[in-house]
Amino acid sequence: MPALTKPQTGPSGQGLSLEPQIKLWLEKDGLLVLSDYRVQLLRHVAQTGSLAEAAQRMGLSYRRAWGKVREIERNLGLVLVESEAGGAGGGGSRLTPAGERLVSRYERFLRVMKRDLSREFRDLFGGRAL
Amino acid sequence: MPALTKPQTGPSGQGLSLEPQIKLWLEKDGLLVLSDYRVQLLRHVAQTGSLAEAAQRMGLSYRRAWGKVREIERNLGLVLVESEAGGAGGGGSRLTPAGERLVSRYERFLRVMKRDLSREFRDLFGGRAL
Repeated sequence: MPALTKPQTGPSGQGLSLEPQIKLWLEKDGLLVLSDYRVQLLRHVAQTGSLAEAAQRMGLSYRRAWGKVREIERNLGLVLVESEAGGAGGGGSRLTPAGERLVSRYERFLRVMKRDLSREFRDLFGGRAL
Repeated sequence: MPALTKPQTGPSGQGLSLEPQIKLWLEKDGLLVLSDYRVQLLRHVAQTGSLAEAAQRMGLSYRRAWGKVREIERNLGLVLVESEAGGAGGGGSRLTPAGERLVSRYERFLRVMKRDLSREFRDLFGGRAL
Protein backbone atom coordinates (compact mmCIF):
# COMPACT_ATOMS: atom_id res chain seq x y z
CA MET A 1 0.00 0.00 0.00
CA PRO A 2 1.44 3.40 -0.95
CA ALA A 3 2.39 5.25 2.19
CA LEU A 4 1.85 8.90 2.89
CA THR A 5 4.89 10.69 1.58
CA LYS A 6 4.47 13.23 4.33
CA PRO A 7 2.60 11.57 7.16
CA GLN A 8 0.42 14.05 8.99
CA THR A 9 -1.70 13.44 12.00
CA GLY A 10 -4.23 16.07 12.96
CA PRO A 11 -5.70 16.50 16.42
CA SER A 12 -8.55 14.19 15.44
CA GLY A 13 -6.12 11.47 14.54
CA GLN A 14 -6.97 11.65 10.86
CA GLY A 15 -3.95 10.74 8.88
CA LEU A 16 -4.88 13.02 6.00
CA SER A 17 -6.08 16.14 7.87
CA LEU A 18 -9.07 16.37 5.54
CA GLU A 19 -12.06 18.53 6.32
CA PRO A 20 -15.45 17.60 4.86
CA GLN A 21 -17.50 20.48 3.49
CA ILE A 22 -21.16 20.65 2.59
CA LYS A 23 -23.49 22.94 0.71
CA LEU A 24 -27.27 22.58 0.90
CA TRP A 25 -30.15 24.12 -0.95
CA LEU A 26 -33.77 23.43 -1.79
CA GLU A 27 -35.20 23.24 -5.28
CA LYS A 28 -38.69 23.16 -6.63
CA ASP A 29 -39.21 21.86 -10.16
CA GLY A 30 -35.46 22.10 -10.69
CA LEU A 31 -35.37 25.75 -9.63
CA LEU A 32 -33.37 27.02 -6.67
CA VAL A 33 -35.81 28.32 -4.08
CA LEU A 34 -33.92 28.35 -0.80
CA SER A 35 -30.24 28.48 0.12
CA ASP A 36 -28.09 29.52 3.06
CA TYR A 37 -27.81 32.93 1.47
CA ARG A 38 -31.53 33.48 1.09
CA VAL A 39 -32.26 32.21 4.59
CA GLN A 40 -29.60 34.58 5.92
CA LEU A 41 -31.47 37.49 4.34
CA LEU A 42 -34.68 36.39 6.06
CA ARG A 43 -32.81 35.90 9.32
CA HIS A 44 -31.53 39.48 9.12
CA VAL A 45 -35.08 40.74 8.61
CA ALA A 46 -36.10 38.89 11.76
CA GLN A 47 -33.14 40.24 13.71
CA THR A 48 -33.30 43.85 12.58
CA GLY A 49 -37.03 44.31 12.02
CA SER A 50 -36.18 46.11 8.82
CA LEU A 51 -35.73 44.95 5.25
CA ALA A 52 -33.55 48.00 4.54
CA GLU A 53 -31.17 47.05 7.32
CA ALA A 54 -31.24 43.37 6.35
CA ALA A 55 -30.30 44.43 2.81
CA GLN A 56 -27.44 46.54 4.10
CA ARG A 57 -26.07 43.67 6.17
CA MET A 58 -26.11 41.48 3.08
CA GLY A 59 -24.46 44.16 0.95
CA LEU A 60 -27.56 44.33 -1.25
CA SER A 61 -29.58 47.27 -2.46
CA TYR A 62 -33.01 47.55 -0.87
CA ARG A 63 -34.59 46.97 -4.25
CA ARG A 64 -32.61 43.78 -4.81
CA ALA A 65 -33.32 42.44 -1.32
CA TRP A 66 -36.99 43.12 -1.83
CA GLY A 67 -36.87 41.30 -5.15
CA LYS A 68 -35.17 38.30 -3.52
CA VAL A 69 -37.82 38.08 -0.83
CA ARG A 70 -40.66 38.33 -3.37
CA GLU A 71 -38.98 35.66 -5.50
CA ILE A 72 -38.73 33.24 -2.57
CA GLU A 73 -42.35 33.94 -1.65
CA ARG A 74 -43.52 33.40 -5.20
CA ASN A 75 -41.61 30.15 -5.55
CA LEU A 76 -42.94 28.80 -2.27
CA GLY A 77 -46.44 30.23 -2.61
CA LEU A 78 -46.10 31.66 0.89
CA VAL A 79 -45.96 35.14 2.40
CA LEU A 80 -42.76 35.26 4.48
CA VAL A 81 -42.18 38.96 5.19
CA GLU A 82 -44.76 41.55 6.18
CA SER A 83 -44.24 45.26 6.39
CA GLU A 84 -45.76 47.75 8.78
CA ALA A 85 -46.52 51.15 7.36
CA GLY A 86 -45.83 54.51 8.92
CA GLY A 87 -44.78 55.62 12.39
CA ALA A 88 -41.86 57.86 13.25
CA GLY A 89 -39.35 55.27 12.04
CA GLY A 90 -41.14 54.84 8.74
CA GLY A 91 -42.42 51.36 9.55
CA GLY A 92 -40.53 48.12 9.50
CA SER A 93 -40.59 44.56 8.27
CA ARG A 94 -40.84 41.27 10.05
CA LEU A 95 -41.24 37.61 9.28
CA THR A 96 -44.70 36.12 9.19
CA PRO A 97 -45.24 33.00 11.29
CA ALA A 98 -44.62 30.92 8.14
CA GLY A 99 -41.41 32.87 7.56
CA GLU A 100 -40.27 32.20 11.11
CA ARG A 101 -40.97 28.51 10.74
CA LEU A 102 -39.21 28.31 7.40
CA VAL A 103 -36.04 29.99 8.72
CA SER A 104 -36.04 27.92 11.87
CA ARG A 105 -36.53 24.62 10.02
CA TYR A 106 -33.92 25.42 7.40
CA GLU A 107 -31.37 26.36 10.05
CA ARG A 108 -32.11 23.18 11.93
CA PHE A 109 -31.78 21.25 8.67
CA LEU A 110 -28.34 22.78 8.11
CA ARG A 111 -27.33 21.99 11.70
CA VAL A 112 -28.31 18.33 11.64
CA MET A 113 -26.74 17.83 8.23
CA LYS A 114 -23.44 19.25 9.47
CA ARG A 115 -23.63 16.88 12.40
CA ASP A 116 -24.31 13.97 10.02
CA LEU A 117 -21.45 15.14 7.80
CA SER A 118 -18.95 14.97 10.66
CA ARG A 119 -20.18 11.58 11.77
CA GLU A 120 -20.23 9.94 8.34
CA PHE A 121 -16.84 11.40 7.47
CA ARG A 122 -15.33 10.14 10.70
CA ASP A 123 -16.83 6.69 10.13
CA LEU A 124 -15.43 6.46 6.60
CA PHE A 125 -12.18 8.39 6.68
CA GLY A 126 -11.30 8.86 10.32
CA GLY A 127 -8.21 7.19 11.65
CA ARG A 128 -7.85 4.76 8.76
CA ALA A 129 -5.02 5.12 6.32
CA LEU A 130 -5.72 4.96 2.64
CA MET B 1 -51.04 31.08 9.26
CA PRO B 2 -50.62 32.07 5.62
CA ALA B 3 -51.92 29.34 3.39
CA LEU B 4 -50.34 28.08 0.23
CA THR B 5 -51.73 30.17 -2.57
CA LYS B 6 -51.41 27.18 -4.85
CA PRO B 7 -51.53 24.09 -2.69
CA GLN B 8 -49.48 21.32 -4.20
CA THR B 9 -49.08 17.84 -2.92
CA GLY B 10 -46.34 15.69 -4.38
CA PRO B 11 -46.29 11.91 -4.31
CA SER B 12 -44.39 12.05 -1.02
CA GLY B 13 -47.12 14.09 0.56
CA GLN B 14 -44.92 17.16 0.88
CA GLY B 15 -47.05 20.25 0.69
CA LEU B 16 -44.33 22.30 -0.92
CA SER B 17 -42.84 19.82 -3.43
CA LEU B 18 -39.34 20.85 -2.38
CA GLU B 19 -36.29 18.79 -3.27
CA PRO B 20 -33.24 18.97 -1.01
CA GLN B 21 -29.91 19.19 -2.81
CA ILE B 22 -26.41 18.63 -1.51
CA LYS B 23 -22.85 19.26 -2.63
CA LEU B 24 -19.89 17.69 -0.85
CA TRP B 25 -16.18 18.19 -1.08
CA LEU B 26 -13.05 17.67 1.00
CA GLU B 27 -10.58 20.38 1.93
CA LYS B 28 -7.13 20.32 3.39
CA ASP B 29 -5.84 23.51 4.98
CA GLY B 30 -8.70 25.40 3.36
CA LEU B 31 -7.83 24.07 -0.10
CA LEU B 32 -10.18 21.94 -2.21
CA VAL B 33 -8.61 18.52 -2.61
CA LEU B 34 -11.45 16.19 -3.55
CA SER B 35 -14.87 16.71 -5.12
CA ASP B 36 -17.42 14.70 -7.05
CA TYR B 37 -15.79 15.92 -10.23
CA ARG B 38 -12.28 14.82 -9.29
CA VAL B 39 -13.49 11.47 -8.03
CA GLN B 40 -15.35 10.98 -11.29
CA LEU B 41 -12.09 11.45 -13.19
CA LEU B 42 -10.43 8.79 -11.03
CA ARG B 43 -13.45 6.51 -11.48
CA HIS B 44 -13.11 6.82 -15.25
CA VAL B 45 -9.44 5.85 -15.02
CA ALA B 46 -10.48 2.74 -13.09
CA GLN B 47 -13.23 1.92 -15.59
CA THR B 48 -11.30 2.53 -18.79
CA GLY B 49 -7.77 1.61 -17.74
CA SER B 50 -6.57 4.70 -19.55
CA LEU B 51 -6.03 8.27 -18.47
CA ALA B 52 -6.45 9.42 -22.07
CA GLU B 53 -9.88 7.86 -22.25
CA ALA B 54 -10.83 9.10 -18.80
CA ALA B 55 -9.87 12.61 -19.92
CA GLN B 56 -12.00 12.26 -23.03
CA ARG B 57 -15.02 11.15 -21.02
CA MET B 58 -14.63 14.23 -18.82
CA GLY B 59 -14.19 16.52 -21.81
CA LEU B 60 -10.66 17.38 -20.66
CA SER B 61 -7.40 17.44 -22.54
CA TYR B 62 -5.02 14.66 -21.58
CA ARG B 63 -2.61 17.24 -20.23
CA ARG B 64 -5.25 18.83 -18.04
CA ALA B 65 -6.50 15.48 -16.70
CA TRP B 66 -2.96 14.49 -15.90
CA GLY B 67 -2.44 17.81 -14.09
CA LYS B 68 -5.63 17.24 -12.06
CA VAL B 69 -4.52 13.79 -10.99
CA ARG B 70 -1.07 15.04 -10.01
CA GLU B 71 -2.66 17.90 -8.08
CA ILE B 72 -4.89 15.55 -6.10
CA GLU B 73 -1.94 13.26 -5.40
CA ARG B 74 0.23 16.16 -4.27
CA ASN B 75 -2.48 17.52 -1.98
CA LEU B 76 -3.11 14.13 -0.41
CA GLY B 77 0.51 13.00 -0.37
CA LEU B 78 -0.58 9.75 -2.00
CA VAL B 79 0.02 8.04 -5.34
CA LEU B 80 -3.43 7.32 -6.79
CA VAL B 81 -2.79 6.52 -10.46
CA GLU B 82 -0.03 4.38 -11.90
CA SER B 83 0.86 4.00 -15.53
CA GLU B 84 2.14 0.99 -17.39
CA ALA B 85 4.60 1.66 -20.12
CA GLY B 86 4.67 0.19 -23.58
CA GLY B 87 2.87 -2.72 -25.20
CA ALA B 88 0.93 -2.64 -28.45
CA GLY B 89 -1.68 -0.31 -26.94
CA GLY B 90 0.93 2.12 -25.67
CA GLY B 91 0.41 1.19 -22.04
CA GLY B 92 -2.40 2.23 -19.77
CA SER B 93 -3.22 3.69 -16.39
CA ARG B 94 -4.93 2.29 -13.37
CA LEU B 95 -5.69 3.22 -9.82
CA THR B 96 -3.29 2.18 -7.10
CA PRO B 97 -4.81 0.35 -4.13
CA ALA B 98 -4.88 3.70 -2.28
CA GLY B 99 -6.64 5.25 -5.29
CA GLU B 100 -9.22 2.44 -5.29
CA ARG B 101 -9.87 2.92 -1.60
CA LEU B 102 -10.16 6.67 -1.92
CA VAL B 103 -12.71 6.47 -4.74
CA SER B 104 -14.68 3.77 -2.99
CA ARG B 105 -14.79 5.63 0.32
CA TYR B 106 -15.70 8.94 -1.29
CA GLU B 107 -18.52 7.34 -3.27
CA ARG B 108 -19.80 5.67 -0.16
CA PHE B 109 -19.56 9.00 1.68
CA LEU B 110 -21.68 10.64 -1.02
CA ARG B 111 -24.19 7.79 -0.88
CA VAL B 112 -24.70 7.84 2.88
CA MET B 113 -24.90 11.64 2.91
CA LYS B 114 -27.65 11.58 0.28
CA ARG B 115 -29.49 9.04 2.37
CA ASP B 116 -29.10 11.27 5.44
CA LEU B 117 -30.22 14.27 3.39
CA SER B 118 -33.49 12.58 2.45
CA ARG B 119 -34.13 11.45 5.98
CA GLU B 120 -33.40 14.76 7.69
CA PHE B 121 -35.38 16.67 5.11
CA ARG B 122 -38.38 14.40 5.52
CA ASP B 123 -38.17 14.72 9.29
CA LEU B 124 -38.07 18.50 9.15
CA PHE B 125 -40.16 19.45 6.14
CA GLY B 126 -42.11 16.36 5.16
CA GLY B 127 -45.84 16.46 5.45
CA ARG B 128 -45.94 19.51 7.70
CA ALA B 129 -47.27 22.78 6.41
CA LEU B 130 -45.33 25.95 7.02
